Amino acid sequence: MALIVHKYGGTSMGSTERIRNVAKRVAKWVRAGHQMVVVPSAMSGETNRLLGLARELQPAATTSELLRELDMIASTGEQVSVGLLAIALQAEGVPAVSYTGWQVPISTDASYTKARIQHIDDSRVRADLDAGKVVVITGFQGADAQGHVTTLGRGGSDTSAVAIAAALKAAECLIYTDVDGVYTTDPRIVADARRLSTVSFEEMLEMASLGSKVLQIRSVEFAGKYRVPLRVLSSFTPWDIDIDEESRSGTLITFEEDENMEQAVVSGIAFNRDEAKISLLGVTDKPGIAHLILGPVAEANIDVDVIIQNVSHDGKTDFSFTVHRNEFARTMDLLKTRVLPQVGASGLVGDDRICKVSIVGIGMRSHVGVASRMFSVLSNEGINIQMITTSEIKTSVVIDEKYMELAVRALHKAFELDQPPARTEGAAAGIGSQAS
Amino acid sequence: MALIVHKYGGTSMGSTERIRNVAKRVAKWVRAGHQMVVVPSAMSGETNRLLGLARELQPAATTSELLRELDMIASTGEQVSVGLLAIALQAEGVPAVSYTGWQVPISTDASYTKARIQHIDDSRVRADLDAGKVVVITGFQGADAQGHVTTLGRGGSDTSAVAIAAALKAAECLIYTDVDGVYTTDPRIVADARRLSTVSFEEMLEMASLGSKVLQIRSVEFAGKYRVPLRVLSSFTPWDIDIDEESRSGTLITFEEDENMEQAVVSGIAFNRDEAKISLLGVTDKPGIAHLILGPVAEANIDVDVIIQNVSHDGKTDFSFTVHRNEFARTMDLLKTRVLPQVGASGLVGDDRICKVSIVGIGMRSHVGVASRMFSVLSNEGINIQMITTSEIKTSVVIDEKYMELAVRALHKAFELDQPPARTEGAAAGIGSQAS
Repeated sequence: MALIVHKYGGTSMGSTERIRNVAKRVAKWVRAGHQMVVVPSAMSGETNRLLGLARELQPAATTSELLRELDMIASTGEQVSVGLLAIALQAEGVPAVSYTGWQVPISTDASYTKARIQHIDDSRVRADLDAGKVVVITGFQGADAQGHVTTLGRGGSDTSAVAIAAALKAAECLIYTDVDGVYTTDPRIVADARRLSTVSFEEMLEMASLGSKVLQIRSVEFAGKYRVPLRVLSSFTPWDIDIDEESRSGTLITFEEDENMEQAVVSGIAFNRDEAKISLLGVTDKPGIAHLILGPVAEANIDVDVIIQNVSHDGKTDFSFTVHRNEFARTMDLLKTRVLPQVGASGLVGDDRICKVSIVGIGMRSHVGVASRMFSVLSNEGINIQMITTSEIKTSVVIDEKYMELAVRALHKAFELDQPPARTEGAAAGIGSQAS
Repeated sequence: MALIVHKYGGTSMGSTERIRNVAKRVAKWVRAGHQMVVVPSAMSGETNRLLGLARELQPAATTSELLRELDMIASTGEQVSVGLLAIALQAEGVPAVSYTGWQVPISTDASYTKARIQHIDDSRVRADLDAGKVVVITGFQGADAQGHVTTLGRGGSDTSAVAIAAALKAAECLIYTDVDGVYTTDPRIVADARRLSTVSFEEMLEMASLGSKVLQIRSVEFAGKYRVPLRVLSSFTPWDIDIDEESRSGTLITFEEDENMEQAVVSGIAFNRDEAKISLLGVTDKPGIAHLILGPVAEANIDVDVIIQNVSHDGKTDFSFTVHRNEFARTMDLLKTRVLPQVGASGLVGDDRICKVSIVGIGMRSHVGVASRMFSVLSNEGINIQMITTSEIKTSVVIDEKYMELAVRALHKAFELDQPPARTEGAAAGIGSQAS
C-alpha cells in the first residue's frame, strides 16, 4: 500500500462522461490497495469562460483589488471539478470527499493570480485517508493569511499536485496529461523521437524552462525541492488498463543519478521560436552598461532570456539579448527612445525570425566536448550560429528560424536519441507493482 | 448616511450587461452617501446547470456525503456572481470587495442543501464598510463548524440578505426582484389588484406560506425575528431612476402597527391550486385517531397542510386533510393499504380538483365578522365551501378549483382591495430621502 497523488488536466475532466472515467481509474488504484489523493483541473474551457466574463466587465487587469476578484471567480472552476469527481467516485462505491485550497488549507502568499504555496496542512487530508476515503483537492489555488482566495497562475494544478504530494510524503505523484510522457524532442518535428522512461529532475527543469509544455516549470522546481517522484503519463489509455502496466508507463522524473543514467550524454532537444533577438552594436564598454541597457527593459516589465556581451575591442562591445517575440516591437521602441540616447551605440539591429535550439543532458557534466560536437553538427548542415549560451547541463544556440527543423533533426540523430540508451529501465519501476 | 443591504436575483445578474446595470444602481446609492452591502444570486440558469452536471453522475441524492458535494458545486454560482459584481463596481470607480459565506464567515448548521444560519460575524464586513468599500457577499450559502460549505436551499439568497442585514443592523434590506412589490392579489387573476405600499410582517408571513412566491418564507421569518425592515421592489426600473423615488417604491414589510395600518381589515387575497383533499368518512372517534391516520403519511415524508376533524356523531367522525397535488396518488395508496385496515372508516374519498383561497389581514384581529363576511360573499356567488381553517390574521377555505378566479375576484371587490386604503403612506417613507 502506498500513498499516491493523481493529477488530471482539464481535458480529462472535460465532460461528466470523462469524469466518470477518471473516477473508474482512481477506483482501480484504490482497489489495488493504495491511499489516493486526486487533484483535478477545471473542466476544459471553464477557466477561460470565467475570465472572459470578467474581461467583459473590465478588459484590463490593473489593480490588486481586481486581481483578487479574478481569483475569486477563476477558482470556482476547480471547485466544481472536485465536487463532481467526488460524486463520481461515490457513485463507483468509493468513499470520497472534496476540499478547496482554503479548506485543506493550502496557504499561499497574497500575490493574486500568481500566488506561491507557503505551507500545506496535511492533518485534515491524512485523517480522511486513514478513514479510507479518496481525498479530491482543488488544484491551482489556495488562500492567503487573511483568508482571501488566491490562484497559482496557469498550469498551477501541476504545482498543487506536487506540493500536496510533498506535504503528504506521497510515494509518487502521477500527472495524467494529453501526452504519454517526455520525449527526446517534439515528435511533430522528429518522427523517430523517443519517449524517455526516466529523465532527471535537472533535465526536466531545463526542458520546462526551454519551452517544453509537458509540465509547468514551478511544479518541476517543487518536485526538485522536496524530491517528489513525479511521473508524466497519458490520460488517454483506457481506465481499465492493467495497473502494473499503467504504473510503469509515461516518464518518471527521478532524483537518483545512477550509473545507467550517466550513459546518456544528451537526453533531449528542446526548441522554441517565441523569441526575437536585439543587438546594440559598438556600445562603449564601461561599468554599468548592462544595467543602462536592460534597466529600462525590466522597468517596462519585459522579460529578457538570453543575454550575450562579448569581449570588447578598442573599448567598444556588442550587446545582444532576446525577448519574447510579442515584446519585440515594444522593446525596439524603448531602446530607440530611452536607451540609445544614453549609451551612444553605433547601431541597433533586431531580428524576430530566429529560434533557440538546446541540447539538454545531465551527462554533459561529465563528458567534455558535447557543446563543440553540437556546433560541428550545425556547421556541417551549413547553419550559422548567432548566439550561444550554456549551463551545466544544457547548451542553447540562437539560429535563423528557417533552419529550426533541420537543426533539431540533425542533433537528434547525431546524439543517437532515436536509439534506446544503454542504461537499464530499472529506475522506471512502477508503483502499482508494489501494491499489497 | 444609512447602512443598506441590496439583494439581486439571478435574472438581474443574468449577463455582464445586467451586472453592469446592478453596479451602476449600487454606485448611485453609494454616491447618495450610503454604506452598501450587496447580496447577488447566481447568474440565472447557473445553479441548474451545475446541479444538472452532478445529476448526470448520480441521479438520486441519497447520502449526506453526496449532499455535501452538491453544496460544494452549487455554491460556486454565487461565488462567480460576487466576483463579477465587485469587478463591475470597481469599473464604475466604486471600491468593492467580495466575500463568500465562509469568508465572512456566515456560520450554519451542517444540514447540507438546506442549512440554517446560526451566526454571522460582522467584523470583517464592517471594517470594509468603514474603509469606504461596497461589500458584495454570496447569498445562499455559509460554512458549518468544520468549514464544510453549506447552502441554504432554493431561494436562500433572500434569507442571506435578511440575515446579513440583521447582523449589521442595517437600516433597510431591499430585495430587487422581477415583480415591483406585494399585491393585494395576483394581478393575472384580478386586473385591478393593487400594489401595497406597506404590509405587516405577519401578513407577509401568511402570504408567503399561502403560496405567494414574492419572498422565500424563511427570509420573512428571519426579518420578523430580527425586525429587519424589508422592501420588495423591481429590478426592472432603469438604474438611474431618482433615488428618492426608488427608495419609496415597491412594498415595505413593516413591524410597527400604527393606527393607519389598522384601518385595512383585509390586506390581500392569496390562493393556490397545488393541493388535493382527502377525507376518511365515519372514522371511530377515539383518542389517537389523528396520529393513526397521519403518522404513516408523515413517515412517508408527505407534508400535510389543512387538517379538519369535526365533532362526532354516535362516536363516528369525518377526518379530512390536504396534501400537495403531486403526492395525492401516493397518499391515497398509503391510506388504502396501511391506514384503512387500522381505523375502520366507512369510506375514503379524494379530490384533486380543489383550490385554497385565503384572506389575510392584520386587521382581522380587531374586527369581528370578517370570516363570516367572506363566507357570505362566496355563498352569494353560489360557491360551496368544502373546508375552513383559520388563524389569527387569515381565513382559508377549500373550494372547487373551477371557482377559484370567481372567488378571488369577488373577495377582492367585497373587501375593497381595489381602492386605496384610508391609511396614510407615511410608513412607506423611503431610505433614499434620508441621505445626507
